[in-house]
Amino acid sequence: MVGIDPGLTRCGVAVIEGEPGRPPRSLAVDIVRTEPGRALEHRLLAVHDALSDWLRTYQPDAVAVERVFTQTNVRTVMGTAQASGVALLAAGRQGVPVALYTPSEVKAAVTGNGRADKRQVTAMVTRLLRLETPPRPADAADALALGICHVWRGAAHHRLAVAAAQASAGAGPGMPR
Amino acid sequence: MVGIDPGLTRCGVAVIEGEPGRPPRSLAVDIVRTEPGRALEHRLLAVHDALSDWLRTYQPDAVAVERVFTQTNVRTVMGTAQASGVALLAAGRQGVPVALYTPSEVKAAVTGNGRADKRQVTAMVTRLLRLETPPRPADAADALALGICHVWRGAAHHRLAVAAAQASAGAGPGMPR
Repeated sequence: MVGIDPGLTRCGVAVIEGEPGRPPRSLAVDIVRTEPGRALEHRLLAVHDALSDWLRTYQPDAVAVERVFTQTNVRTVMGTAQASGVALLAAGRQGVPVALYTPSEVKAAVTGNGRADKRQVTAMVTRLLRLETPPRPADAADALALGICHVWRGAAHHRLAVAAAQASAGAGPGMPR
Repeated sequence: MVGIDPGLTRCGVAVIEGEPGRPPRSLAVDIVRTEPGRALEHRLLAVHDALSDWLRTYQPDAVAVERVFTQTNVRTVMGTAQASGVALLAAGRQGVPVALYTPSEVKAAVTGNGRADKRQVTAMVTRLLRLETPPRPADAADALALGICHVWRGAAHHRLAVAAAQASAGAGPGMPR
């Protein structure tokens, strides 16, 4: 599966393999970056196209995306929400079921504490994935943590997402009249 | 040009023709709707594809999109931001320059008052476009108002957007490594 920590300047993306109760494995992790000086529509296009390439390359059975809240950094939250919009679009286009997790669900899944700080999350991600060095920057660790959260909470959540995706795949997009 | 009032349940889209100092004309206006019960990624896909069809059909010289703020309805603001993300993506994909306007810029442009209410905006849009009946719902009037705002503020703003779009079109999207 693929975990995505949406962002406009830095968007974390990670490929995780695993199942509930087993140690997860990291197959790939990276940060998609766009320049703050570029036009917003071109930044969104760059994020969308890079994530689409990841999905085409790894053909995941699911995508886990962090849910964006207004409580987070107000200065960047709109860009983050727009980036999450194009991430979801890329998954929807390729028919990959999407699961959304709140930051506290992710923290609780990897550290046992929904209010863990970034340092704790990075430390647990490093340990759980048996990485030689901690993933950097934090967005990479967050994408990996999302992946771990998804494969562990896994089965039930995923079956619901598949059912929802299938149920709503029927209706087509609107057209100009 | 095309005006877009982003939204997930109702996204207003309008095609406006005009230039500064002349009465604007409405060529088309509609609402793209998606069902709240559908999976988020399929709703975003429906909004994106419908807006892309509008852009392909009308080949506008510019797209004006309402800027989303955290101050607006907190319950729906994330969906609105995600819808604006896919609207901007559709414009970026087709190489159409984007201009963003705040709600008060739009209100000021059509009513002379940046704090005008929906009723005043609808009334002025109806008068300025010489429509026989007021556009409904408010999202349609907002898309038309965005269009009027853009053609009137027009020239200078648009030249800047074109320059920005050209400047940033050079750098390509990131790729999986």
